[in-house]
Amino acid sequence: MDFRPSDRALHWQERVRRFMDEKVLPRSAEYWAQVREDHTRQPPVMEEMKAQAREAGLWNMFLPGEHGAGLTNLEYAPLAEIMGRHLWSAEVFNCNAPDTGNMEVLHMYGNAEQQARWLKPLMAGEIRSAFLMTEPEVASSDATNIQTRIDRDGDHYVINGRKWWSTNMGHPNVAISIVMGKTDPDAATHAQQSQILVPVDTPGFRVERMLTVFGYDERPIGHAEVVLENVRVPVENLIAGEGRGFEIAQGRLGPGRIHHCMRVIGAAERALELMVQRLLSRTAFRKTLAEHSVWEQRIGEARTEIEMCRLLVLKAAWMMDNGGAKNARSEIAQIKVAAPRMALKIIDDAIQAHGGAGVSSDTPLAEMYAMVRTLRIADGPDEVHNRAIARLEYAKHGGRG
Amino acid sequence: MDFRPSDRALHWQERVRRFMDEKVLPRSAEYWAQVREDHTRQPPVMEEMKAQAREAGLWNMFLPGEHGAGLTNLEYAPLAEIMGRHLWSAEVFNCNAPDTGNMEVLHMYGNAEQQARWLKPLMAGEIRSAFLMTEPEVASSDATNIQTRIDRDGDHYVINGRKWWSTNMGHPNVAISIVMGKTDPDAATHAQQSQILVPVDTPGFRVERMLTVFGYDERPIGHAEVVLENVRVPVENLIAGEGRGFEIAQGRLGPGRIHHCMRVIGAAERALELMVQRLLSRTAFRKTLAEHSVWEQRIGEARTEIEMCRLLVLKAAWMMDNGGAKNARSEIAQIKVAAPRMALKIIDDAIQAHGGAGVSSDTPLAEMYAMVRTLRIADGPDEVHNRAIARLEYAKHGGRG
Amino acid sequence: MDFRPSDRALHWQERVRRFMDEKVLPRSAEYWAQVREDHTRQPPVMEEMKAQAREAGLWNMFLPGEHGAGLTNLEYAPLAEIMGRHLWSAEVFNCNAPDTGNMEVLHMYGNAEQQARWLKPLMAGEIRSAFLMTEPEVASSDATNIQTRIDRDGDHYVINGRKWWSTNMGHPNVAISIVMGKTDPDAATHAQQSQILVPVDTPGFRVERMLTVFGYDERPIGHAEVVLENVRVPVENLIAGEGRGFEIAQGRLGPGRIHHCMRVIGAAERALELMVQRLLSRTAFRKTLAEHSVWEQRIGEARTEIEMCRLLVLKAAWMMDNGGAKNARSEIAQIKVAAPRMALKIIDDAIQAHGGAGVSSDTPLAEMYAMVRTLRIADGPDEVHNRAIARLEYAKHGGRG
Amino acid sequence: MDFRPSDRALHWQERVRRFMDEKVLPRSAEYWAQVREDHTRQPPVMEEMKAQAREAGLWNMFLPGEHGAGLTNLEYAPLAEIMGRHLWSAEVFNCNAPDTGNMEVLHMYGNAEQQARWLKPLMAGEIRSAFLMTEPEVASSDATNIQTRIDRDGDHYVINGRKWWSTNMGHPNVAISIVMGKTDPDAATHAQQSQILVPVDTPGFRVERMLTVFGYDERPIGHAEVVLENVRVPVENLIAGEGRGFEIAQGRLGPGRIHHCMRVIGAAERALELMVQRLLSRTAFRKTLAEHSVWEQRIGEARTEIEMCRLLVLKAAWMMDNGGAKNARSEIAQIKVAAPRMALKIIDDAIQAHGGAGVSSDTPLAEMYAMVRTLRIADGPDEVHNRAIARLEYAKHGGRG
Repeated sequence: MDFRPSDRALHWQERVRRFMDEKVLPRSAEYWAQVREDHTRQPPVMEEMKAQAREAGLWNMFLPGEHGAGLTNLEYAPLAEIMGRHLWSAEVFNCNAPDTGNMEVLHMYGNAEQQARWLKPLMAGEIRSAFLMTEPEVASSDATNIQTRIDRDGDHYVINGRKWWSTNMGHPNVAISIVMGKTDPDAATHAQQSQILVPVDTPGFRVERMLTVFGYDERPIGHAEVVLENVRVPVENLIAGEGRGFEIAQGRLGPGRIHHCMRVIGAAERALELMVQRLLSRTAFRKTLAEHSVWEQRIGEARTEIEMCRLLVLKAAWMMDNGGAKNARSEIAQIKVAAPRMALKIIDDAIQAHGGAGVSSDTPLAEMYAMVRTLRIADGPDEVHNRAIARLEYAKHGGRG
Repeated sequence: MDFRPSDRALHWQERVRRFMDEKVLPRSAEYWAQVREDHTRQPPVMEEMKAQAREAGLWNMFLPGEHGAGLTNLEYAPLAEIMGRHLWSAEVFNCNAPDTGNMEVLHMYGNAEQQARWLKPLMAGEIRSAFLMTEPEVASSDATNIQTRIDRDGDHYVINGRKWWSTNMGHPNVAISIVMGKTDPDAATHAQQSQILVPVDTPGFRVERMLTVFGYDERPIGHAEVVLENVRVPVENLIAGEGRGFEIAQGRLGPGRIHHCMRVIGAAERALELMVQRLLSRTAFRKTLAEHSVWEQRIGEARTEIEMCRLLVLKAAWMMDNGGAKNARSEIAQIKVAAPRMALKIIDDAIQAHGGAGVSSDTPLAEMYAMVRTLRIADGPDEVHNRAIARLEYAKHGGRG
Repeated sequence: MDFRPSDRALHWQERVRRFMDEKVLPRSAEYWAQVREDHTRQPPVMEEMKAQAREAGLWNMFLPGEHGAGLTNLEYAPLAEIMGRHLWSAEVFNCNAPDTGNMEVLHMYGNAEQQARWLKPLMAGEIRSAFLMTEPEVASSDATNIQTRIDRDGDHYVINGRKWWSTNMGHPNVAISIVMGKTDPDAATHAQQSQILVPVDTPGFRVERMLTVFGYDERPIGHAEVVLENVRVPVENLIAGEGRGFEIAQGRLGPGRIHHCMRVIGAAERALELMVQRLLSRTAFRKTLAEHSVWEQRIGEARTEIEMCRLLVLKAAWMMDNGGAKNARSEIAQIKVAAPRMALKIIDDAIQAHGGAGVSSDTPLAEMYAMVRTLRIADGPDEVHNRAIARLEYAKHGGRG
Repeated sequence: MDFRPSDRALHWQERVRRFMDEKVLPRSAEYWAQVREDHTRQPPVMEEMKAQAREAGLWNMFLPGEHGAGLTNLEYAPLAEIMGRHLWSAEVFNCNAPDTGNMEVLHMYGNAEQQARWLKPLMAGEIRSAFLMTEPEVASSDATNIQTRIDRDGDHYVINGRKWWSTNMGHPNVAISIVMGKTDPDAATHAQQSQILVPVDTPGFRVERMLTVFGYDERPIGHAEVVLENVRVPVENLIAGEGRGFEIAQGRLGPGRIHHCMRVIGAAERALELMVQRLLSRTAFRKTLAEHSVWEQRIGEARTEIEMCRLLVLKAAWMMDNGGAKNARSEIAQIKVAAPRMALKIIDDAIQAHGGAGVSSDTPLAEMYAMVRTLRIADGPDEVHNRAIARLEYAKHGGRG
């Protein structure tokens, strides 16, 4: 057992951290000004930063093996943390969800034609993509509930359904979506679903509205409610084969959760940092807030919670690298619940330390809170993950796993 | 001791509840549509409802004695709860903060001329008002920190300072503000401040920007950051006399906190109601969410917490009616901390029960959360109120109170 | 609505408080010394105090109507709080569980002969009694699980079963028990059980062992595990009639829970008092603990939680007085969960404030903690009560109540 | 970074685990029976198991380097966890506090004579020892508060003071104590204290009473209050030199906290195990408790909290091995707070799952709770550790560290 990161890992962290400091953070104000000016276009500064990151070799680092930077999950995780400090920055490195997951899916399950047509421009950062899974009418945490239909009709599939929380659908560059739906509702539970590529300009594919999160319209990324009405795509667009949708969905979850959780830890670290700076600079009742012992307790607990949570995420990443996602099932469920909870508490304390500035746009805290709060719901609510962990514990003692 | 509300109290509750059901809630969609269309104007539907409420005698009920409806704090409190279920509805009854507090101040401390000029149109609902107290640069929970200056210059006062979280400054009908500042920084601690009437169209009075709360721009009400630069108003605009600002501020806090807390309880009740309805209607893993025992626990606790908190707020109201705000100092501090905390937990659970709908605008929950969260900061952060309660406990045992 | 206690209620509180101060607390050390010397006998000082309390008319105050002091539940509740500050003191006033519940049962359901034989000496404080309900083998919170059999055999009933947590079975004066068991396992769910009087010296009635609570042997009161093996009692010992056991059990719960919860509030008040005194007297890092703001927060919250909880218990008592226990079903479940939880938090904080003295016998805190902790289990665990509350909420919206 | 334990570490874990299963646990009932029979003598079965453990080479494993088993802190930590599952078992392996800390001190700071006289029999398990630091009159978390005096008088030191929570003072084999006191109250803050060896049979050394923890008399180990009245020992008994007491105390804390925390994690694991077994075997409302979703949530969280906490303790151990205790200052403070808090929550849930059996002696849970609760106080209360962590965070941003 060794808690020292490898030299290679430290080297990449150093590179990303320096790029953030030198190329990204100095342009943060510019980025937000462009977003505020017109959030329906891609802010030009983002494309400039992307070009620089790509040139610097800090590009697609999430992708394992030769196509990316060749990093393991354990090595990539701390990079996700660095990006998570400023949640919008992941796009600079072409490492933002859900494009990352979509690229992984195409990388692992796409055929050569699909890869040439969609994976290549995605990896080049030329287009953006969405993943259409969650549906408004049903508890989507139970995949068997999905109602969208993908019906074969000659050389085409015809897709009908309603999806929401389709991230990136507000993005000016979004070109392609991967849609989850049922090709055979009568098949065995986990063989009913398929995944299919649907260009967003296909007739019948309609963005019904953009969703807000705690009042935040998150464009130029943005989450949409999408209606698919008799959307026809060629049979070649099917990924991997009929009935493999559930399998593909499972495969993307492991790395995605590592990424999410590490970004959340990055957000928590930044909130802690902002909180400490505030406490040291603000005075009430003749001493700095930092000297009031109630804040000592909160800071002590914040540091402790971050440290514990990070170690568990890193261990889960390591287990995935050494045995695969199935091996790390319990740990991945654990971090999915633990990381947002930890971060929400710290961000909330940081808001409290900032007073009115905390709930307004003068700090990133309120928006962080909103985004992290959605992670207790997205990708399965806490309750479903705790249930999964519990069943694995029960199974150790002869209970139904 | 008798927990049965008086017939008179029940009668008023019945009247307000029926008016809400018949005249207000059916127009909720219309109200929000008009707000979305243009949030810089007063939605016409609001003025129509105001006219109906005034005609129905459901008007200025918050104001004690003959000028209002003659209700005690204890009798008015449940009406605030009813309005709190839909936080925007208080304006319908001319019972919304900070106009209520401003009317109370003018009622108690204003001279005849000030009352004729400003109190009369406020009570008629013809104009709106703001209260400019909090400042961005200092911990305003410690009133001695206030930096705004109100300097005598012949027949005028000249005001310089920077205020924020000035609610109503986004309101199209806002006409007058009450500004807190120092007339004599060298006086004894609580005799430095004064309050003065400043029309919002006075030269040098400038709205620098509107603030958002967790992404919500709360116009047509709205909170502003306001700069006062050499703002000159006649000496007649001073309220009550130089050095009485702190005393006036204290006086408005008691009733205002009762109102806030009861509205928060109304919000919690509504969140609980929405949560139960959701749990009963949504199915996961072959049973309704309501049947999952983790939700039984949360619902059981939500009901309990609401009941306990409401009783304490009502008791504080009763104590104010029977002995005044000073008598109820500890209780008022207690509810200021307890009510938002209770409500935030319930709203958060309700969000979780709703999944993606909970964080979006499909339910009022996320906005409720944002608004209630600010109440842990506004009007003194939790920490300051707990400190006040503790010191009263210490004093019982010979400690410094 | 009126939060002022009646003069009559205040008068009784004053009497009990003064008696505690003058006659009970000065002899606390003597009481404990006698207990430590021999916990299998009744401490003589207890009998002396009982005689004084009876003479002072502070006796059986829990019993409604002419047989007691004629107090309502609302009037008696604050007296239970005063006794709860020193949990052993309730016996002084003949107001200790489970004798109180047993006396109520005999008062309401016992026939003349049963009352003459058992109620009279109980009310005189001459004997003590136990209530044998809970069984070690089953989840007794579900009354249908009870396994003890009460079988008719000619002029006798024959009882077989195993009970535990039979309070008072360590008491030297214990003479009689009320046993819950099934007379007809095939009857409708709530008509299977009966309650029967069983003298503790009946052959076959055997105390198998005394139980400890967190290491505390609570004799001279004490909780026992009892085995009943072919215990024969005359049919006249049956209370009210076959099949009425569940009904009788329900009847005793309402007042009993009010008493328990008010005693718990008394314990919490005392813990808060001890905590404040400690904080004011102990110094660390050059100031009293009281001045460390983390303790201000805890004290502020402790005071708030006690106030809220007490109001809810009093309201539940008032509802029972005005409409009966069924009317107050939800409220009684609410306080059963809320009061111990509230008290445990405060006692735990008080322990922390006392350091090593808190966990030892130098303060009453650790034993208080142990006793209150059992109340989250005894008489139905929290989970079952929250479930009951939730179902009543669901029923309001058309769910299964 | 590598989360795989070394083969060597796994090998030792396997050995200790097997020894526990084969030699210790089968004799648990015997051990407790002997303790109950007479808790003032050493249970013979303990000496038998000690002999076996020593013969098996599972002896003094805590001690680094050649004198022990040559294990690092990181390698020893999981062994402490295994022992912590049954807290009394550490003595079997001569790895119980405070003997471990005392042996470390003598190993590092004792001179040859001191080692021959005291370290040798301690390492052989022939005698037991106590560490007399905490005092009842002062907040001992602030070492400068210590009042015990160690005054030079010719060839002797004369010691006067009062100590408590002196663990092992109830042990029949206790022979030696290390006493912390002030040799020079006028010296610089951290040079006032010294540590000195005091045989427990020295005249003037008096055990005033044994302390209980939540009702548990923890003999044959036991915690005492000790009075030292003109206790004279030769100057040769001083450890390391006058004024080095604080330095020596600091040195022992690091490893000791790792051991404590890992034992606490062992206790938490066992509580989780007992809880799961109970949930699977008990039925209420027609399904096992395990199937009630509220328990799924608690089990999910318990597993997560244990995993996170263990990783942090292991990391702290690794940091101590690679850079020393000073290097791991924040992490050691973090685990000191986090481990007991985590365990208390899980043990409390396990108690709730067990109902009456949970608070009684039918499970080890209530005693576990009592013992772990003291760890939030012993060796510095949570508040002091959080303060230390916070100051290190503040220092990162220019605050006073």
